[in-house]
Amino acid sequence: MAKELKELTPRSESYSQWYQDLVIKADLAENSAVRGCMVIKPYGYAIWEKMQRQLDDMFKETGHVNAYFPLFIPKSFLSREAEHVEGFAKECAVVTHYRLKANPDGDGVVVDPQAKLEEELIVRPTSETIIWNTYKNWIQSHRDLPILCNQWANVVRWEMRTRLFLRTAEFLWQEGHTAHATKEEAEEEARRMLEVYATFAEEYMAMPVVKGVKSANERFAGAVDTYTIEALMQDGKALQSGTSHFLGQNFAKAFNVTFADKDGNRDFVWATSWGVSTRLMGALIMSHSDDNGLVLPPKLAPYQVVIVPIYRNEEQLAQIDEKATQIIQALRAKGISVKYDNSDNKKPGWKFAEYELKGVPVRLAMGARDLENNTIEIARRDTLTKETVGLDGIEETVATLLDDIQKNIFQKALNYRKEHTITVDSYEEFKEKIEDGGFILAHWDGTSETEERIKAETKATIRCIPLNGDMTPGKCMVTGKPSPQRVLFARAY
Amino acid sequence: MAKELKELTPRSESYSQWYQDLVIKADLAENSAVRGCMVIKPYGYAIWEKMQRQLDDMFKETGHVNAYFPLFIPKSFLSREAEHVEGFAKECAVVTHYRLKANPDGDGVVVDPQAKLEEELIVRPTSETIIWNTYKNWIQSHRDLPILCNQWANVVRWEMRTRLFLRTAEFLWQEGHTAHATKEEAEEEARRMLEVYATFAEEYMAMPVVKGVKSANERFAGAVDTYTIEALMQDGKALQSGTSHFLGQNFAKAFNVTFADKDGNRDFVWATSWGVSTRLMGALIMSHSDDNGLVLPPKLAPYQVVIVPIYRNEEQLAQIDEKATQIIQALRAKGISVKYDNSDNKKPGWKFAEYELKGVPVRLAMGARDLENNTIEIARRDTLTKETVGLDGIEETVATLLDDIQKNIFQKALNYRKEHTITVDSYEEFKEKIEDGGFILAHWDGTSETEERIKAETKATIRCIPLNGDMTPGKCMVTGKPSPQRVLFARAY
Repeated sequence: MAKELKELTPRSESYSQWYQDLVIKADLAENSAVRGCMVIKPYGYAIWEKMQRQLDDMFKETGHVNAYFPLFIPKSFLSREAEHVEGFAKECAVVTHYRLKANPDGDGVVVDPQAKLEEELIVRPTSETIIWNTYKNWIQSHRDLPILCNQWANVVRWEMRTRLFLRTAEFLWQEGHTAHATKEEAEEEARRMLEVYATFAEEYMAMPVVKGVKSANERFAGAVDTYTIEALMQDGKALQSGTSHFLGQNFAKAFNVTFADKDGNRDFVWATSWGVSTRLMGALIMSHSDDNGLVLPPKLAPYQVVIVPIYRNEEQLAQIDEKATQIIQALRAKGISVKYDNSDNKKPGWKFAEYELKGVPVRLAMGARDLENNTIEIARRDTLTKETVGLDGIEETVATLLDDIQKNIFQKALNYRKEHTITVDSYEEFKEKIEDGGFILAHWDGTSETEERIKAETKATIRCIPLNGDMTPGKCMVTGKPSPQRVLFARAY
Repeated sequence: MAKELKELTPRSESYSQWYQDLVIKADLAENSAVRGCMVIKPYGYAIWEKMQRQLDDMFKETGHVNAYFPLFIPKSFLSREAEHVEGFAKECAVVTHYRLKANPDGDGVVVDPQAKLEEELIVRPTSETIIWNTYKNWIQSHRDLPILCNQWANVVRWEMRTRLFLRTAEFLWQEGHTAHATKEEAEEEARRMLEVYATFAEEYMAMPVVKGVKSANERFAGAVDTYTIEALMQDGKALQSGTSHFLGQNFAKAFNVTFADKDGNRDFVWATSWGVSTRLMGALIMSHSDDNGLVLPPKLAPYQVVIVPIYRNEEQLAQIDEKATQIIQALRAKGISVKYDNSDNKKPGWKFAEYELKGVPVRLAMGARDLENNTIEIARRDTLTKETVGLDGIEETVATLLDDIQKNIFQKALNYRKEHTITVDSYEEFKEKIEDGGFILAHWDGTSETEERIKAETKATIRCIPLNGDMTPGKCMVTGKPSPQRVLFARAY
């Protein structure tokens, strides 16, 4: 790959083209031969694996276990919960047959009309229905509760306009599905998982998020309340990054799941569900990266450090190899992941550009002069700065730098969000300011009509009613009716 | 659950009913509402996660990376490789539509006839075709090779007769797909992964396996050679536990994937694929378990030790809790996973039966007398024996015992296999002995005709041509024609 192949469309020219270029050129993902379905390439998948491992640990620490439920959902199950089917029926992949046969009229194979399913199967767009049909057999008494299951799975929603990671027909995710004896316990669970997502987003992805509740229009199909974390991308658009739903007794009623309490009285079970998906990859990419390529938080980078030797002959390389081996050992002993690229078919300049594009947080380069002086060049990806430092205690230097990078990119994203969050009181001002992108905090009268009017006229949606926001009441910017608190608006992915 | 609910049908009465009982009662898996698809319950999934983690580490140690390819395969892709489509067309789940709509004639939803796909999509039964269509764009030159990808995924094969874990319409697996510049390198890779599988089976699952090559009849659809590991279950039936395929240039030719070698000459790329699935759960269960329940190898047990307190009053429990806390710390410090069950709504006898059923390798029980004497009762699941030991150095005692259990159950399974592997020279004797179950080593003339005749007349198949077997030539037991070495026969799952 020549250097120019690594060049990205600048963000200022076209943000969406920059994103597309970056996903492809950094080897994160690509479109497949199947409409709307992506191939997640090894480098992209390695980041996703880091996310998975961390989230999975956090789920287990909060008492959850993993399980696996079927890919297919009988069509009749979807219809059981009225809002749920309304929300998902329009974008379902439907399995109707279970066999192919040789084409009687020519080459290849055709669907065998003899092998039609009695009831069509839906490729799961989400698993509430099949899981609550299963829970029915697991729950008799309050002693069987709570059930705290999660599954890592693929789901399919037949989206018409797709973009790598952000919106794909098939995506990978985790979906937690919990069952509880009381409303309070289920609500607490839904909020607990929102906190887990927020902690993961901020501490691992270095991505600040606003926690809040969705308005009725933006709620999950079948939920009583949807909690969300909302992040602001560099182009001023919001990205919903994770949701946690309090489902009330809706699915328990749809699948007739009841339990006997301590006094033997039967009641319907209370539920939550919560999920994050490979969409987080898009959020991660757009939160920190620049015109030179990816910028990855050290906690999620497939390798945190790359070492590049700079040499004129085999003898120099042998000497650098020896030093590098020591450095690698010292770094690994501190739990730092490192790649040593001494491949001889690429020049250092090519390698520098490559690892910049791939967002490796720290680059170490060692040449003949470094060997003489017992030094090494250390470059950080987030600020694109470099300096020459002494080799002694290099593992401490790198560890401190990695911490600093993690904090710095979070702070940078937080500063961006602060600079792009404004408070607006009149609808006129709102319509003007929304064109600049960013979050807008404004008063709203709480009705769907007003929300829909704002969306139709400005393309902005209510991202959430913030949980920890300013609770000063006011008047709706559109209708002047009373509003208990400002809500968060933005145009969104 | 009352004690009788934990009782299993004895193996001597009905081995298949015993298996079914065990899978259900030990909370490993259950049938779902979707024909042939299972729900993997949390305890079963925890074992699968242990397997996954270990295999994934072994794949990475041998240079492989993970990626993710689409769930769907365009129908036309399947037809590209003639043997491949022949092998999979008869058991495919076919997606024909992408939308549901309200039922115009009544309740619920129906498939929207307006939303018919131009080309049907097959839910992947295996991913060679979609992956080789992708590799076409990844490979230009020998510098792009080898590609060493693996994916963890779900696949669907519309089996008519299903059994939990052993044969299900949907199952979980990993599939490695590698691309190489030379035939030798691809063959070496296929054999390397066979070794990885054999090591995993023997060292982690404690399940001895025979490594070998499949006969042409039993080969993967589209492979040049299929390598296999074959295990012997307690009922004398063989279970194919993992396969690694040398695919030659078949898929490269089907998808026109070529590369330029160092001299600029173009050739088709050489391929392998290899996989193990949740079927391994069935193999694990049937290798070691007994009429009391599961027997798990310590290396794959979700928790290796359970501690059960035996007390008459709250005061005693408080004292045991305190001791148990110290024991748990000491065990965890040695990397031993442990569960402390001090729940007060179950009696010790119930707990003993429960953990026996679930195959926890070591059970520690502590009562009032143990407190006085600074002792603890230690019971091993594999031999169902117990003794009282001193508490000092309990972590060493347990660690040694876990090692011993791991070795003992492997040795027990190996002894069983030795006792049930015989050498036979005449077809008459073969027909008689095959009724007893077990492996039979016999000479075969190498033809499909003879193999098919044996299968039709005895239900036995050639499990493999052993790689490290006795290489003494002989005469086919059926036709008397020359045979270069004995091959391994058995009735199989």
